[in-house]
Amino acid sequence: MTNNAAVKWQKKDLLGLEYLSKEEINIILDTAASFKEVLSRPLRKVPTLRGKTVVNLFYEPSTRTRISFELAAKRLSADVINIGKESSSIQKGETLIDTGKNLEALKADILVVRHNSSGAAMMLSRALDISVVNAGDGWHEHPTQALLDIFTLRQKLNKIHGLKVTIIGDIAHSRVARSNIWGLTKLGAQVTVCAPKLLIPDSIEKMGVKTSCDVDKAIKNADAINVLRMQFERDSAKAFPSKIDYFKKFGITEERLSKAKKNIVVMHPGPINRGVEMSAEVADGVNSVILEQVTNGIAIRMAVLYLVAHAKK
Amino acid sequence: MTNNAAVKWQKKDLLGLEYLSKEEINIILDTAASFKEVLSRPLRKVPTLRGKTVVNLFYEPSTRTRISFELAAKRLSADVINIGKESSSIQKGETLIDTGKNLEALKADILVVRHNSSGAAMMLSRALDISVVNAGDGWHEHPTQALLDIFTLRQKLNKIHGLKVTIIGDIAHSRVARSNIWGLTKLGAQVTVCAPKLLIPDSIEKMGVKTSCDVDKAIKNADAINVLRMQFERDSAKAFPSKIDYFKKFGITEERLSKAKKNIVVMHPGPINRGVEMSAEVADGVNSVILEQVTNGIAIRMAVLYLVAHAKK
Amino acid sequence: MTNNAAVKWQKKDLLGLEYLSKEEINIILDTAASFKEVLSRPLRKVPTLRGKTVVNLFYEPSTRTRISFELAAKRLSADVINIGKESSSIQKGETLIDTGKNLEALKADILVVRHNSSGAAMMLSRALDISVVNAGDGWHEHPTQALLDIFTLRQKLNKIHGLKVTIIGDIAHSRVARSNIWGLTKLGAQVTVCAPKLLIPDSIEKMGVKTSCDVDKAIKNADAINVLRMQFERDSAKAFPSKIDYFKKFGITEERLSKAKKNIVVMHPGPINRGVEMSAEVADGVNSVILEQVTNGIAIRMAVLYLVAHAKK
Repeated sequence: MTNNAAVKWQKKDLLGLEYLSKEEINIILDTAASFKEVLSRPLRKVPTLRGKTVVNLFYEPSTRTRISFELAAKRLSADVINIGKESSSIQKGETLIDTGKNLEALKADILVVRHNSSGAAMMLSRALDISVVNAGDGWHEHPTQALLDIFTLRQKLNKIHGLKVTIIGDIAHSRVARSNIWGLTKLGAQVTVCAPKLLIPDSIEKMGVKTSCDVDKAIKNADAINVLRMQFERDSAKAFPSKIDYFKKFGITEERLSKAKKNIVVMHPGPINRGVEMSAEVADGVNSVILEQVTNGIAIRMAVLYLVAHAKK
Repeated sequence: MTNNAAVKWQKKDLLGLEYLSKEEINIILDTAASFKEVLSRPLRKVPTLRGKTVVNLFYEPSTRTRISFELAAKRLSADVINIGKESSSIQKGETLIDTGKNLEALKADILVVRHNSSGAAMMLSRALDISVVNAGDGWHEHPTQALLDIFTLRQKLNKIHGLKVTIIGDIAHSRVARSNIWGLTKLGAQVTVCAPKLLIPDSIEKMGVKTSCDVDKAIKNADAINVLRMQFERDSAKAFPSKIDYFKKFGITEERLSKAKKNIVVMHPGPINRGVEMSAEVADGVNSVILEQVTNGIAIRMAVLYLVAHAKK
Repeated sequence: MTNNAAVKWQKKDLLGLEYLSKEEINIILDTAASFKEVLSRPLRKVPTLRGKTVVNLFYEPSTRTRISFELAAKRLSADVINIGKESSSIQKGETLIDTGKNLEALKADILVVRHNSSGAAMMLSRALDISVVNAGDGWHEHPTQALLDIFTLRQKLNKIHGLKVTIIGDIAHSRVARSNIWGLTKLGAQVTVCAPKLLIPDSIEKMGVKTSCDVDKAIKNADAINVLRMQFERDSAKAFPSKIDYFKKFGITEERLSKAKKNIVVMHPGPINRGVEMSAEVADGVNSVILEQVTNGIAIRMAVLYLVAHAKK
């Protein structure tokens, strides 16, 4: 079954959902569905990538994404090497391309790259023959996060086409939002983004989404909401400095949800600021699929690692 | 043989020796004895936990304990993920429970937790369905350290019941002392604690131990001494600031040992401050079992990981 | 084939090329050649060290060397533990010998040690029964780097005896230079070192090399050059503060290479300062074997780990 998927998959890299067709996105989602079954077994391991080496090259810290990729790789029986920004070569000023070329010379098979510059993964993918998976590049894309969001949604509501999905939070500085918009619109969902005015970039409507600054209206008819983390320690605070004020105007509460569809799906990429983006009751409530997203993240990453490793190069 | 042990073991977690019966402690010690045999083989590996994931979640640094758990898990063929306090999610202010829930959603099987707050492991164990092993929580307990101390003692002297054991050092700030006291007294040993007056908490006698501020008297009839590390970089220095003075009054020297039982067993959880808690001659001397403790630590941790993973949940 | 090599190899440690005979160096090179073949297979893994534990004990950061050893060990199916200088035991002031004794008690099989003190690996090797591999000690030796340099040269030029090799850069502070000199001269190559006068130690001629401060003359008849990294962030800058001036006087450019032998082999241990030690064109040019060195580093380290693990102890 996954063999079929691999036959169809041609790309050695996963750089962003902008560059994938609807069919390619569906291959990943279908492959993830079959790997999710592996995760429910007592022995959660398959020999698929035995003898292969996956390198997590993280120029920005991200424990959650790194661990999810690490577990995905280990469940495929790959060897995993973690390189963080504290790495001496990185500190010694080696260029990104030189680091990539060295890892290729060390016979790494797949490079999972997190970088604070948009386009870093693409630059590496052009310079290298080995596979590159984008684990987040600047404000550009975070494709595996969007894929796991979409996968979770598809598992809950049995389709994506025709769904109304509202993305709430700091749209301007969010690669998660961009990747979700590319993926959801390609699969036929209607996307609305909702945020304080300064956190919605002017160009976003060109991506085919509606915008709103009124969260109550924006969730009223939504089938699902994806609530982004407000990064008050970073960019978000410049446009919207007060956490309390943000929660009052945009925070998802049971009160707000009571006016939305009864079965509305509530997603969050984590880690949650309880009492900022949403109340603790909503985070732990019946509509929340936040922990299922985490579980599905491993299935998606297993699928991506499997597909790029088996692409006809 | 270990199968028998697993049949009897019921707890999904190991939180502290306070919460274990004499029988449960003995199950762990007996299981460790059978795993110790594995460590002496050329191929020091068994497939017992293949496909399982052990996460070392360390909010305090501890290379020794972390590596011991990591090696124990790898020798059981488990996959191991290390998360340190530098972890981005931890820095981003995610709650301990949310971190635990996320790791559960990532399909971790056993969480090994080191935390500076007493009760952290218990809090996690109540919130999660997966196993939690306490690798040290505040000044509360460090159960695997005490178990390896007791295991070493039992291997040396063939029993615990009736032994006289003196614990020397900063009792007030020591989770190792507390776990040893719980374990030793449950198994029928007589425990004396010996320290400068300010480093013996008033409440300690309620745990069924004698106290002493005179190290020569306290070791005179002892079958074994467990010499704790003085943490001059942390709490110990407030009550007893001078290393030289400490060594003069409490340091274990060959001179002092010459007045104790000839076969007295000398233990230390490490790392040793040579010339502070004991002289180099004693640390490396014939009575010292300090390196055997290190070896036994892996056997104990293999036993604990094995037992909690196979508990009837 | 490698079995034969192991039969001849007697040493439990690899401390430096100074302490190896010509025959021993050739055993390592021949063993590496057979492991290099493994690296070209789709499943780059052999069960040779299954059940063994390799500990990377790095008191200085070195991502490249650490990862190379880690991959070499994993491809031999060993378990790998990484300990960095941020390690708590190291911070707590444990002595190097105590750390080594503890790792031995933890049943580590091979200790790979990087340390800023010359002689650190030798000190450990005398104190421990387990194998010690020197991954760089102070300004003393970095034997696996020199072995991979020599291996690369032998693969390119089919011999070492009679070759003219020029080592260019900060000779005074370079363990790579020292190890190369020991190895190359033992195998019959003629070595010249070339650097600014203050970066050539007086004693170096006793090692059987020529010295030069004129890079054009020094590379004129060379079969190969090994261009060392200038550590402007560390020692090199004291003797030669200006990067631009260094590049002008000693940097390897296409212009300079055009006056050397046509097939001159250009090596660099990495990471390269492009535009300091050499131009980008030279680094990526037809004479450069820099990325082959990286690949060969894994084969050399697999050979070393294999040989010391199987030495008759």
